[in-house]
Amino acid sequence: MQRSDLMEKVVSLCKRRGFIFQSSEIYGGLASAWDYGPLGVELKRNVKSSWWKAVVHDRDDVVGLDASILMHPKVWQASGHAENFHDDLVDCRVCKKRFRADHLENRDCKTKDKCDFTTARAFNLMFKTHLGAVEDEASVTYLRPETAQGIFANFRNVLDSTHKKLPFGIAQIGKSFRNEITPGNYTFRTREFEQMEIEYFTKPEHADECYQQWINQRFQWYLKLGIQEKHLRIRRHGDDELAHYAKGCSDIEYEFPFGWSELEGIANRTDFDLKQHAKFSGVDLQYNDQVEQKKYFPYVIEPSGGVDRATLAFLVDAYHEEEVQERTRVVLKLNHQLAPIKVAVLPLLKKNSEIVEMSKKIKNRLQKKCVCVYDDSAAIGKLYRRQDEIGTMYCVTVDVDSLQDQQITVRERDTMKQERISADQLENYLTEKLTNDSSILN
Amino acid sequence: MQRSDLMEKVVSLCKRRGFIFQSSEIYGGLASAWDYGPLGVELKRNVKSSWWKAVVHDRDDVVGLDASILMHPKVWQASGHAENFHDDLVDCRVCKKRFRADHLENRDCKTKDKCDFTTARAFNLMFKTHLGAVEDEASVTYLRPETAQGIFANFRNVLDSTHKKLPFGIAQIGKSFRNEITPGNYTFRTREFEQMEIEYFTKPEHADECYQQWINQRFQWYLKLGIQEKHLRIRRHGDDELAHYAKGCSDIEYEFPFGWSELEGIANRTDFDLKQHAKFSGVDLQYNDQVEQKKYFPYVIEPSGGVDRATLAFLVDAYHEEEVQERTRVVLKLNHQLAPIKVAVLPLLKKNSEIVEMSKKIKNRLQKKCVCVYDDSAAIGKLYRRQDEIGTMYCVTVDVDSLQDQQITVRERDTMKQERISADQLENYLTEKLTNDSSILN
Repeated sequence: MQRSDLMEKVVSLCKRRGFIFQSSEIYGGLASAWDYGPLGVELKRNVKSSWWKAVVHDRDDVVGLDASILMHPKVWQASGHAENFHDDLVDCRVCKKRFRADHLENRDCKTKDKCDFTTARAFNLMFKTHLGAVEDEASVTYLRPETAQGIFANFRNVLDSTHKKLPFGIAQIGKSFRNEITPGNYTFRTREFEQMEIEYFTKPEHADECYQQWINQRFQWYLKLGIQEKHLRIRRHGDDELAHYAKGCSDIEYEFPFGWSELEGIANRTDFDLKQHAKFSGVDLQYNDQVEQKKYFPYVIEPSGGVDRATLAFLVDAYHEEEVQERTRVVLKLNHQLAPIKVAVLPLLKKNSEIVEMSKKIKNRLQKKCVCVYDDSAAIGKLYRRQDEIGTMYCVTVDVDSLQDQQITVRERDTMKQERISADQLENYLTEKLTNDSSILN
Repeated sequence: MQRSDLMEKVVSLCKRRGFIFQSSEIYGGLASAWDYGPLGVELKRNVKSSWWKAVVHDRDDVVGLDASILMHPKVWQASGHAENFHDDLVDCRVCKKRFRADHLENRDCKTKDKCDFTTARAFNLMFKTHLGAVEDEASVTYLRPETAQGIFANFRNVLDSTHKKLPFGIAQIGKSFRNEITPGNYTFRTREFEQMEIEYFTKPEHADECYQQWINQRFQWYLKLGIQEKHLRIRRHGDDELAHYAKGCSDIEYEFPFGWSELEGIANRTDFDLKQHAKFSGVDLQYNDQVEQKKYFPYVIEPSGGVDRATLAFLVDAYHEEEVQERTRVVLKLNHQLAPIKVAVLPLLKKNSEIVEMSKKIKNRLQKKCVCVYDDSAAIGKLYRRQDEIGTMYCVTVDVDSLQDQQITVRERDTMKQERISADQLENYLTEKLTNDSSILN
């Protein structure tokens, strides 16, 4: 398979099997907005809970937060978004279209050779709306362009309620919105997207060390959840790329079929954000260090990843085609923590009511422990292929012999190896297989 | 404790211990927007995953979905929201304030006796924003006022990708936004809120039966997760309350300190929504019944609940004050599935390094299985009270004897009963206690 064909194949599989649909498709679609279907929502849930477990539950120094999308407009003055979060746009006087000034080369302009551009104007990327019944300047608010500011605005409240000592972090998963002029590459760059962000507060003198640790830990997270190492790299930003307040920034990049692109950025944001919010709010956001008996603004290390981007990378990386008995087998080799369905129970003969009954009994028992389906709508070969291409970890098959010996066949997805085991032992067998590396996310 | 004091006590506890903070509090707050703190986010996650398990994973006939918040504006024409989703507002010519026409009695108008009202005007409750670089009518879009329409718009795609047969449902959890004129009652009515909705599609002739079943199942869900039956009731809407397309609607209400209020509505929406979307999109949204060899629009039963409302009800209902040894014990008697922290490991003497070491070892071991904390920042009595008031299920205490006999003390939250068990047996003991009713959510 050519890597250039890969994207098309993944997009097609995602639509056909219910991972990802175009938003509002029956109305011609909404540009670059996507909906997660029955399998996609399970995959994305698993990505998010694997992240939450790794960065919150498995650690003692990070707590969670869920701040609202609508915030006080002053937040965006303090953060700098109101003033600086913009693209420079130009209008073409001939075709009346608007373009990003830095993307004029790739413009989709019908009158390309006759273009007559205005000078560039700043266009803020935040979505604006109005709160309350009166639409005036006083009621303007924005959809947050990042979840991070919800964390900074709650720094004092989290500190006062948890009594955490430095270093500690606050983690959050949630939707953000950016009115991108040129979204694209499927779910990679969209106007509505989900972030998973940590703000990790530390003594200024420990910030460099924390920064390195987080780059390493976040890189390992993608590896441990199954991304192939050859498709992952760390790209350190040059000094000319850094925001004026940042001391360092590194991207974890994945080699998508459309090129190396950012999955997550880890930045040393210094004490910029807390100082800004302290200045704009008048509230003391310094940390009171009782050991050193002094107050100061902590530095913050920010690992900021995209849920949709991670989900897309896991999908693309898991997609495999193999020749098996002269036919092409499509298999999604997703890590077992991410696989939307863990077990499919399949009767070998759907016309044999005893086999069907035994299959359903097994499915009902397993369903209490893990995500599990029953399917009898095709011959066994086809049923296997269907489960393979959506990444189901194990297929359990009940046949005529099972009725006699109470044994069933368990088939593993990646190796296609089949094992005959006692139906009684199935739960223990699967529990062991599916949790044997529950420590994977440390 | 007076029930009238209850609300104030819950709000105070939520702020002090980090369940719920006011959004943008350092900037004076954003009216009626709230953020979930470190414990609140865990509680809300547990509410949502208990719902998802009950309505998706434990069933064979419901699949999940996660549609985007921004949708094509035609969706809101088809649904009727563009035309009908409004409040009637009047302006006071004297004080220049705006009021809901149906709430004039309770108005907060400084010149109450001299009010001079305009005639009522319709005010649409959807938040409006603009997609793309040009702010004109063509770029207008809305923040969804309900998640339901994302399900209807995806009906065809879900059907084509899953091959589900009637009856089947599509479930979704996500944020919705309504520009309420009079939000209030803490997190009960807010402009940004999270919904958990199911659209359950059925043959028209089975709709009444499905409607009854869902009312019952959803009522049981709240009961099984610990809401006291005396605080729950079902209120059937009168014919005059029903939307013109609805054949029936019932609310599950909880007796909040501010009165009986809706947690969830279960409605028989007939085939209204699919027909509307078929009409506005031109796409065939009929179900092709292969058994009966005919095509028709299914009816839909919609159980639609609020995540924030459910979370608030669980908090209020769990709040208890008890007299213990002449002191007031505050205890959150949350169901074990909802409790933010399952186990706290506490050393009896923090100055004894062996006790501390053994405690931390136990905490590290348990942390892989459940949400677990270590705390040594106070005397044992105080540590217990701290855990009680946030609903921690079990406290595990390590003392001097533990170093000799390798036994620890496990204290249960509600009964305060203490058991001495072998540290080796702790994982099994807790696993059994915390999962013994894993079938609770059927």
